[in-house]
Amino acid sequence: MKKAVIVGMGFGGLRAAQTLAGNGVEVLVIDRRNFQLFQPLLFQVATASLEQEHIAYPARAALRKWKGIQFRLGEVTGIDLDTKTVHLEDGTVSYDYLILAAGSVTHYFGMKSIEEQSFDLKSLDKTVQLRTHILEKFEHASRETDPAKRRALLSFVVVGGGPAGVEFAGALQELIQYELAKDYPCLSMAETRIVLLEARGTLLPFLAEKQRDYAVRQLTKKGIEVALNTQVSGAEPGKVLLANGSHISCHTIVWSAGVKAAPIADILGLCSGANGRIVVEPDLTVAGRPEVFVVGDIAYREQDGRPLPMVAQVAMQGGTYAAKTILRRIKGLQVRPFRYLDKGNMAIIGRNDAALNAFGFKLNGFLAWVFWLGLHLFYLPGMRNRTMVFINWLYTYLFRAQQIRIISGPPAAREETCLHKAKIVTPPHPG
Amino acid sequence: MKKAVIVGMGFGGLRAAQTLAGNGVEVLVIDRRNFQLFQPLLFQVATASLEQEHIAYPARAALRKWKGIQFRLGEVTGIDLDTKTVHLEDGTVSYDYLILAAGSVTHYFGMKSIEEQSFDLKSLDKTVQLRTHILEKFEHASRETDPAKRRALLSFVVVGGGPAGVEFAGALQELIQYELAKDYPCLSMAETRIVLLEARGTLLPFLAEKQRDYAVRQLTKKGIEVALNTQVSGAEPGKVLLANGSHISCHTIVWSAGVKAAPIADILGLCSGANGRIVVEPDLTVAGRPEVFVVGDIAYREQDGRPLPMVAQVAMQGGTYAAKTILRRIKGLQVRPFRYLDKGNMAIIGRNDAALNAFGFKLNGFLAWVFWLGLHLFYLPGMRNRTMVFINWLYTYLFRAQQIRIISGPPAAREETCLHKAKIVTPPHPG
Repeated sequence: MKKAVIVGMGFGGLRAAQTLAGNGVEVLVIDRRNFQLFQPLLFQVATASLEQEHIAYPARAALRKWKGIQFRLGEVTGIDLDTKTVHLEDGTVSYDYLILAAGSVTHYFGMKSIEEQSFDLKSLDKTVQLRTHILEKFEHASRETDPAKRRALLSFVVVGGGPAGVEFAGALQELIQYELAKDYPCLSMAETRIVLLEARGTLLPFLAEKQRDYAVRQLTKKGIEVALNTQVSGAEPGKVLLANGSHISCHTIVWSAGVKAAPIADILGLCSGANGRIVVEPDLTVAGRPEVFVVGDIAYREQDGRPLPMVAQVAMQGGTYAAKTILRRIKGLQVRPFRYLDKGNMAIIGRNDAALNAFGFKLNGFLAWVFWLGLHLFYLPGMRNRTMVFINWLYTYLFRAQQIRIISGPPAAREETCLHKAKIVTPPHPG
Repeated sequence: MKKAVIVGMGFGGLRAAQTLAGNGVEVLVIDRRNFQLFQPLLFQVATASLEQEHIAYPARAALRKWKGIQFRLGEVTGIDLDTKTVHLEDGTVSYDYLILAAGSVTHYFGMKSIEEQSFDLKSLDKTVQLRTHILEKFEHASRETDPAKRRALLSFVVVGGGPAGVEFAGALQELIQYELAKDYPCLSMAETRIVLLEARGTLLPFLAEKQRDYAVRQLTKKGIEVALNTQVSGAEPGKVLLANGSHISCHTIVWSAGVKAAPIADILGLCSGANGRIVVEPDLTVAGRPEVFVVGDIAYREQDGRPLPMVAQVAMQGGTYAAKTILRRIKGLQVRPFRYLDKGNMAIIGRNDAALNAFGFKLNGFLAWVFWLGLHLFYLPGMRNRTMVFINWLYTYLFRAQQIRIISGPPAAREETCLHKAKIVTPPHPG
């Protein structure tokens, strides 16, 4: 029986596993996490409206339903393309076919200060840290008497005008308006500030021009300061530095201005395109290695003169294509080159509001918002998670509740405020 | 206006705040966490069936509904009873009345090795670490070829036969039977082992004797090894040591064999009873300090010749009593001494099974189980959490799903397996 190894269980890897299942191929899926993270909803975890567990689906729960699929938790440390083996920290596995779907990581464009002092919306732990951090800034501000310091504590700078940045900024504004304003009656919400910075001249470039203007208008109406053509050059404690020489005082930077291929791409020594992605042939294989497929964010391929975008859709279609191609090759059948079909794009702008652009069809507002929710619910893995998120959204819609305002998780995020040290210093008077 | 400070927002502190609210007293609640933790359900978080967020209710969400209550996040570092001030790391606050409701911490009876190598069921972060740890042991075992090592990885020792220990052991058995057995078809569940150790001669001492036997029988039938009259003397890596000189090979120790007063009790220099608890007068005040109330786990008082138990009921009744007493004293009215009314006790033993003993009425099995669920749902704070937990339980009941099998949270818990280090060591061949 032929053996296929899939590295990475994101949108691409999962589709590939599903397509191969029950088709007479022995499949091993390797991931360094034991769950599939539904990244498009991370911004709702960061803004206290979704439970982290509801967008994380256990790998083994997903894979055990399918025939002939095994899972291994582990970090891939290297791949030997000649001997067809994948190296892990605690062993090696061999393959007949390899599907590399390791995804992407945040790209800081060499700005170490940003990397160290910002949050991103790519991993579950970091996102929970961001939620905790936001709440801690409000707690801190409620005890701060200096207005300038208080204003900096309540300033949130989001860098990057793609869906993640726009959606996070909108949701944060709602968290502040509907919940934190009531939690902190001692604070004036006029002192809070959300700034959305974008280096290019537009937000959400996949939308039609009118829609982009609509998005900017709507965000501005909500009180979010949108600054286009504004480049970030670095960060210092308490401020983000701009390329034009000015700065913004803040204690929270959320970086969603770039992604690049996962580090494994680097060490394979293969031909790489923009953002360190591995250049692939028309059938998504590596040149001279017809058994090695590369799909999703980590692959680089141009279609109609433009690079394929690093989005879930490309990964899902690529994963399915690679699996089908393997099955056809085993049967000795011909395959057609991969062709990405763009089913459209959208972004949520706020409560009752989204913008959608699909097959030339453009829609803004409430209906687009309903469509956004429905589609994300559909793609969210796991019936239980789907049920829970649906009830959650219903609850949030009816009661404007973003209730998960709890400060928890990794202590790293809490060091600054020192609230959880079990330190008792003042000797009290005996009674 | 008189000012009351409440230290600790557990069952006692929350009841006190609720009772004082809207009654012309300025109230400040201080807690080092920004949420109220519903500890009785922690075992379900540890065994992957409840989301951690659902048993944590934000302090400000609870308190903002009540009139005249403020909240401050912070660690109390000392209390000056003469000047009536509470010291925090970043400031001091004064009071006319103080309600000390700081609760308890795990008691290791001086066994440092146990403290370092065991988990407890007292805090949210530690409980999530325990869930992660259990799942990691299964992942590790699935790669382990040595049967003895594998068996140690799959052995779980629970120390303490109170409700927390019994409920955790039962839920862990179900997690293994219904979920992990399917997640790891390569592992034989006959190699797994759950041992429940109790130093005394009985589990769940608050039950009638027949019920205690019932509990032992039911747990044993589920495959849990119950060892009574068995004392633990320490731990070494990979084993728990028993006082009789033998040991049990295991990589997971859950300690629920004791609690003692929160450390703040230590430094107040007040008269202390068993487990470092502060001895209080019949009106729950400190001798000579009629304005200082001590309630819940941190207070020591005997009633009918026996110390009040360290349970939620005592804390809730004490919190209400202290607040009412303050209100009566302000009006110049007399107060009756505190008297604890034991409304009964119960423990869940497993699916469809619990034991209950209230006002001499004894009930085992399904009905007791339904009653257990209903009562915990009733006491769980927050409508949203109640709704979510109810749906959760329904889902778990119908589908036997304990789905939150995700390895996440503080990296401390993951160090051992080194799975998340972004380390790439093997130089691969270029293509």
